[in-house]
Amino acid sequence: MNPLNNDRLIDAFVTTPALAELFSDASVLGAMLDFEAALATVEGRAGVIPAGAADVIARAARDADLPHADMAAFLRDTRRSATPAVPLVSLLVERVRAIDPAAAAYVHWGATSQDVVDTALVLLLKRVRPSLQDDYDALTAALQRLSNAHASTVMVGRTLLQPATPITFGLKAAVWFAGVWEGWWRLRSALDYAGRVQFGGASGTRAALGSDGPGIAAALAVELDLEPSPPWHTRRGRLADVASACAILSGALGKIARDVALLMQAEVGEVAASGGGSSAMPHKRNPAEAAVALAAAERVPGLVSGLLTGLVHEHERAIGGWQLEWSALSATIQATGAALSAVASTIGGLDVFPARMRANLDATRGAVFSERATLLLRAAVGRGAAAAIVERALARSRDESITFGDALRADADAVRALGDGIDAVERLDEDVAAAETLRRELLES
Amino acid sequence: MNPLNNDRLIDAFVTTPALAELFSDASVLGAMLDFEAALATVEGRAGVIPAGAADVIARAARDADLPHADMAAFLRDTRRSATPAVPLVSLLVERVRAIDPAAAAYVHWGATSQDVVDTALVLLLKRVRPSLQDDYDALTAALQRLSNAHASTVMVGRTLLQPATPITFGLKAAVWFAGVWEGWWRLRSALDYAGRVQFGGASGTRAALGSDGPGIAAALAVELDLEPSPPWHTRRGRLADVASACAILSGALGKIARDVALLMQAEVGEVAASGGGSSAMPHKRNPAEAAVALAAAERVPGLVSGLLTGLVHEHERAIGGWQLEWSALSATIQATGAALSAVASTIGGLDVFPARMRANLDATRGAVFSERATLLLRAAVGRGAAAAIVERALARSRDESITFGDALRADADAVRALGDGIDAVERLDEDVAAAETLRRELLES
Amino acid sequence: MNPLNNDRLIDAFVTTPALAELFSDASVLGAMLDFEAALATVEGRAGVIPAGAADVIARAARDADLPHADMAAFLRDTRRSATPAVPLVSLLVERVRAIDPAAAAYVHWGATSQDVVDTALVLLLKRVRPSLQDDYDALTAALQRLSNAHASTVMVGRTLLQPATPITFGLKAAVWFAGVWEGWWRLRSALDYAGRVQFGGASGTRAALGSDGPGIAAALAVELDLEPSPPWHTRRGRLADVASACAILSGALGKIARDVALLMQAEVGEVAASGGGSSAMPHKRNPAEAAVALAAAERVPGLVSGLLTGLVHEHERAIGGWQLEWSALSATIQATGAALSAVASTIGGLDVFPARMRANLDATRGAVFSERATLLLRAAVGRGAAAAIVERALARSRDESITFGDALRADADAVRALGDGIDAVERLDEDVAAAETLRRELLES
Amino acid sequence: MNPLNNDRLIDAFVTTPALAELFSDASVLGAMLDFEAALATVEGRAGVIPAGAADVIARAARDADLPHADMAAFLRDTRRSATPAVPLVSLLVERVRAIDPAAAAYVHWGATSQDVVDTALVLLLKRVRPSLQDDYDALTAALQRLSNAHASTVMVGRTLLQPATPITFGLKAAVWFAGVWEGWWRLRSALDYAGRVQFGGASGTRAALGSDGPGIAAALAVELDLEPSPPWHTRRGRLADVASACAILSGALGKIARDVALLMQAEVGEVAASGGGSSAMPHKRNPAEAAVALAAAERVPGLVSGLLTGLVHEHERAIGGWQLEWSALSATIQATGAALSAVASTIGGLDVFPARMRANLDATRGAVFSERATLLLRAAVGRGAAAAIVERALARSRDESITFGDALRADADAVRALGDGIDAVERLDEDVAAAETLRRELLES
Repeated sequence: MNPLNNDRLIDAFVTTPALAELFSDASVLGAMLDFEAALATVEGRAGVIPAGAADVIARAARDADLPHADMAAFLRDTRRSATPAVPLVSLLVERVRAIDPAAAAYVHWGATSQDVVDTALVLLLKRVRPSLQDDYDALTAALQRLSNAHASTVMVGRTLLQPATPITFGLKAAVWFAGVWEGWWRLRSALDYAGRVQFGGASGTRAALGSDGPGIAAALAVELDLEPSPPWHTRRGRLADVASACAILSGALGKIARDVALLMQAEVGEVAASGGGSSAMPHKRNPAEAAVALAAAERVPGLVSGLLTGLVHEHERAIGGWQLEWSALSATIQATGAALSAVASTIGGLDVFPARMRANLDATRGAVFSERATLLLRAAVGRGAAAAIVERALARSRDESITFGDALRADADAVRALGDGIDAVERLDEDVAAAETLRRELLES
Repeated sequence: MNPLNNDRLIDAFVTTPALAELFSDASVLGAMLDFEAALATVEGRAGVIPAGAADVIARAARDADLPHADMAAFLRDTRRSATPAVPLVSLLVERVRAIDPAAAAYVHWGATSQDVVDTALVLLLKRVRPSLQDDYDALTAALQRLSNAHASTVMVGRTLLQPATPITFGLKAAVWFAGVWEGWWRLRSALDYAGRVQFGGASGTRAALGSDGPGIAAALAVELDLEPSPPWHTRRGRLADVASACAILSGALGKIARDVALLMQAEVGEVAASGGGSSAMPHKRNPAEAAVALAAAERVPGLVSGLLTGLVHEHERAIGGWQLEWSALSATIQATGAALSAVASTIGGLDVFPARMRANLDATRGAVFSERATLLLRAAVGRGAAAAIVERALARSRDESITFGDALRADADAVRALGDGIDAVERLDEDVAAAETLRRELLES
Repeated sequence: MNPLNNDRLIDAFVTTPALAELFSDASVLGAMLDFEAALATVEGRAGVIPAGAADVIARAARDADLPHADMAAFLRDTRRSATPAVPLVSLLVERVRAIDPAAAAYVHWGATSQDVVDTALVLLLKRVRPSLQDDYDALTAALQRLSNAHASTVMVGRTLLQPATPITFGLKAAVWFAGVWEGWWRLRSALDYAGRVQFGGASGTRAALGSDGPGIAAALAVELDLEPSPPWHTRRGRLADVASACAILSGALGKIARDVALLMQAEVGEVAASGGGSSAMPHKRNPAEAAVALAAAERVPGLVSGLLTGLVHEHERAIGGWQLEWSALSATIQATGAALSAVASTIGGLDVFPARMRANLDATRGAVFSERATLLLRAAVGRGAAAAIVERALARSRDESITFGDALRADADAVRALGDGIDAVERLDEDVAAAETLRRELLES
Repeated sequence: MNPLNNDRLIDAFVTTPALAELFSDASVLGAMLDFEAALATVEGRAGVIPAGAADVIARAARDADLPHADMAAFLRDTRRSATPAVPLVSLLVERVRAIDPAAAAYVHWGATSQDVVDTALVLLLKRVRPSLQDDYDALTAALQRLSNAHASTVMVGRTLLQPATPITFGLKAAVWFAGVWEGWWRLRSALDYAGRVQFGGASGTRAALGSDGPGIAAALAVELDLEPSPPWHTRRGRLADVASACAILSGALGKIARDVALLMQAEVGEVAASGGGSSAMPHKRNPAEAAVALAAAERVPGLVSGLLTGLVHEHERAIGGWQLEWSALSATIQATGAALSAVASTIGGLDVFPARMRANLDATRGAVFSERATLLLRAAVGRGAAAAIVERALARSRDESITFGDALRADADAVRALGDGIDAVERLDEDVAAAETLRRELLES
């Protein structure tokens, strides 16, 4: 099958080539056929179906040419029956019949649509982490490298987009790292937890196999390298959990992307991503990958809410809530992967400008030390007097274009209150040391 | 370009073949090239660029072979620059150069990425209504037909899934019709309102064209058969409005789908859609298209919330909020179209069983008339006494398996209170007449 | 009733005191009682119920003391019956009985829960626009004032947070204005369109009133100053439309808030809102109201998606989809109002610093003119040569800290290509003029 | 403080009295004051502030009368500064000053707004599980009881709302149980994982406390009985995780509510909840609590998507994404609790009608055995022949109103193929046994 157009232009920012391939027709059909092959194999082994038939089915499933020419018909039948299992079984029966007509009787033996559809999804989910691993490894390695390299690179901490107190860029990168690390850990756990075989038969009781049901279910899990499980036809929390974990990881990636875009502003100029060009303006270095990451991250929460809404499955198989999962979950994962890929690339090539960070800090003329000054003064002269002195010094610093420290040193009350300690107000080493403690803690998490 | 895989299996329930084609690479690239051709044409006509160059560009854009072989590279560059305009312009420049190197200077003259990307989207939006029109016409015609045919087919009205008072199936179909009609009207308005050219240049001022800017923008709108507009680079309300309208239409379609699925329950049995089969159970007639419609309808609200979240565009062009629109809006429209197609097919082939409707009504043993009885009794004996009589009659009806009317007629207080009027309690003709008035009103809306 | 705690701290950023009051218990109960009073009045007038009873009911409804002490019981009964109509009717019956026991028979005559609940909601919706009008008027007036005052205040246009080409602050304010104006227009239309009486009786047929149904429904609309309508028990598109319109307006407000916050960054410094203080740092001027607006705007899309999901109403009255509307729609409106109030206050007190805008523009050293240079050069020497010259000049400008114009003038190829026209590259007056044309167009919209 | 109106009518279906109280002004202010008291206490103990001042502050915080009369002013200041910490600190300073003016200097020492706001939220989160525990215990106990009582109560399994194969009501109740159990386990884990102190100071470095920072942070966690943590000012994954877990639990509850409503339909009649009344129809028993649960469950996903969207926190403290959390997370939890309470009550009082379940099964005339017949026949005569026989028997069963088993027994091909085994087709004991195996497995999970 020509996978060319699985990676569609209209969705360029919400997938990656690798993930588009993972959820391509070839891959999805392959996963469904893997289920049918494994089912026949374990049923043949257990004597539930004839061993010869099992071999034929497994072989036909594994060798099956995919219905390139007939994909439109396959899709039409999928929509008509609200499940791809119906045309899939027809396809496989046809292939089996061509080899051994008698074996066709045993295709999909004792299984239901949801067994093959859900297990195929789980088999695809197992391939998600490997698909993302390289980008994750590259990103976290780059973040650790950045953090270590800038352990003592001082910059302005910013809250509500305003200067707060000094931090280090090493700490900022460590915070980014910790967010991604936590998100990845959540996603890994969720994917592991979701990796369970689905095998329940028509109404989820496996009754068609009688007393063989539990044994076949267990063997099927082993054959497919999945965890065993009672049927989960209508308990979809684990899939929703994968989606939520994607959203949490996307959020951590979006945070990095937005921070990078903010730091790259011409007026800030503290970092530069190897940016995208413009179709109109030759001078531009756009934070293009940050834009892609943000677009992907903004897409995910709505997809998750669709999946969460769909959790209300009716009776023994849902009408609507189940059928939306394939598209919603694959779109969620693809968008998350797009964000991860874009952020990994951006961080991998990030230029950092410590001098500009220092210049922006200095441009506050020491206003970032007003908290420390306030605490020192409060201890000496009380809350109200401290506030008055600091207020006065800040105004003087602004009006006379001197530093806040100089303004304090020019204030008799401040000098009287703080004495020699007045110079401690501006001690950046305290900020750096405090940041370093936390930086190490975060990187070790 | 081979459009085969634009209609992907993983997304089978949230698009249609026609809409997958509308948002295919060939279609999207074609719309972008249409913009470039039209821009060159009007700029040539106005003397902003040489007429000869304009002709070459327009011709190259219209004849351009699409980059089948290089689509992967096109996508890579799209992601790298966070816009398909960058590789698109490169592609067009290359084609133009092959014809007339000098003309290449005038490709994309005075335009910016967002001009071509947004206008291409709007050109695609113009094709949405025609793509949906057949299904809409078929659905509304079928609903009108059903409504007229069953103007006096009595059935149980159900509130909170419990029997309420009698209605007609004709009224129910008219309510369905009115919902779809309103949703369609909203979507049409929103699509019309969104059909505006985007042409603002680098920062949305058209300054690169100097005093020619307004004229070129106006001519471009005419050339592309779009409405003129000041640039709307960061005012995206009209696109969000299209998405919201899709969601409202999807909701109306989902309502029909759920009602059909409920009416098709074996225990209710009032309608039957020509259902989908099962991979396990030969006896099943699944409301498969209803399931597809519900899956699509459940997907749309989350996509809309993504678009609404993205409305917060930064400064003169957004980072993230803009880049997510193509995928989110196209997915919204595709899912809506999938729901429309599925519901149109279901309603077009719906079997209705009036006898079963009547049987289910009769099975309530007249409890559905308790409201009318209560009002008649209240007027005669007051609120408390009326409630006591009705309560008694309902209990007797249940306990003795007689009708509520008979139970009333066996109640001395009821007889005393209502006299001959007691038979009016069960007058279905009043229910039918009341339903008919509203049915006509709704169909004429 | 003490409305104190209707404005809850936990929800402080997603409502306003006025809107918390509008959706307070007193207000909601009052709207339901208004429905009951009007219903009795028109039914009395039409002879459907005795005129005397109608008077008593209307009087009792209007004079009713609200159940302060029993609000907990009222809520318990509301939850138990899944509708506030049940305890409301009990309450009113009790009050009517105290005046005239016989009149109690006619309370809520021919109506159903959904009639009173939906009409009460619509009556509250009618008060939404007046509640918001002052903030809207103040905001749009301030935006027009800002735009006019800064018609020729030049600043950097920014795309993807990077410098693009010059614009004016007057244009930026006009774009803000146009977004708010459009959003308001959508919300007004949606509110007007939703302002329809609900009156359908038990199953939406008005059958309980027989042939009087249509007349009573029409008179009720007049009495309540609402539009007449066939029942819309399960057609909720108009309510969803109000919510979507809120989201679109919120998005326009969020865009302003984010722009303001970005412009207020210390390193940008182009505007200052009269900011919020900090609990730790005396030097801080936080864009506090922008934060509140953004929090509210981010909340709305998810609320809208809940309402859109709920559109799938079952049969003649929904189970779940209907019951969620009161909270979801009131929360949507409150958050929108919170954003409007915060942005109106921020813009009303905004300080603008034209000198800083100019300085930031100058700090690009003319790179913002690279688009114009490119077009002029392309016309003279073709695409490739033009790109090379511009690239060279940009590099020289960066490396030698000279302006882009000077770099061009020092480039022999550029001088040869452009001759005297070389100075036109830096003509800000063209940018201002282009911006001014659009500014006027947007303000007149 | 009069907590009366914290439980608002407009939000009646999306909270409970207990949760409305948990997120009431009194409770929220109390949690913030607990933080300030604990902070002063541990700082006093460590000698960071004078021990005497610490005592005064802790006492003032614990004894503080809440600002009943001034709540409107408190809210105004909260909105003005985009944080309740600013008026909270003012309030506490005032109370401390009244006791000991000098101690006021040490209020909120070294902390920032986000420290008190986030820690207060976490303190409230700690009370969530206890608030929900009774309903959870009651619900799971009732589900286990129902499941055990109906281990052999046979009913129709239903997929896509159509009859599938037989199951037991015991299994259905066990599936409900497993969904709730899993959801609760996820929520507990998420709440535990989120239970970490926030203490980072102005920019999250704790620099104001110098080398005392880590020790104070650790002691504060102990004092408040929370887990220690590096500051998580911008890493909000754990809060999003709580919200997602709420949505997953709500989905499991919504599934039960919808199943109950479907089983309560008059035509199905397999269960009855002690239902709500109607304002119009005395005969109605509405599944009112199921409606409340569904309304709450439909609300949650959109709230979650808001929180997930808000994860993109800027720099060292977000503008918008942080400020929306209080309302979004408290609304999420309240809606989840409302669903839990409603479902617990519904299941606690559920009547089950085994005879009706059996009758509905019998009404399929054995069509539910078509899967088993098909498998038995396939093994005997191959796929095509088996399908033909079953198709024929199903048609005959329908046309002649005989059971599917009788139709098979009347079919010569079927008899030839199956011999004596033909009666095995209808063996319900196999269905019951298969269901029982899974039922036990699910209850033991």
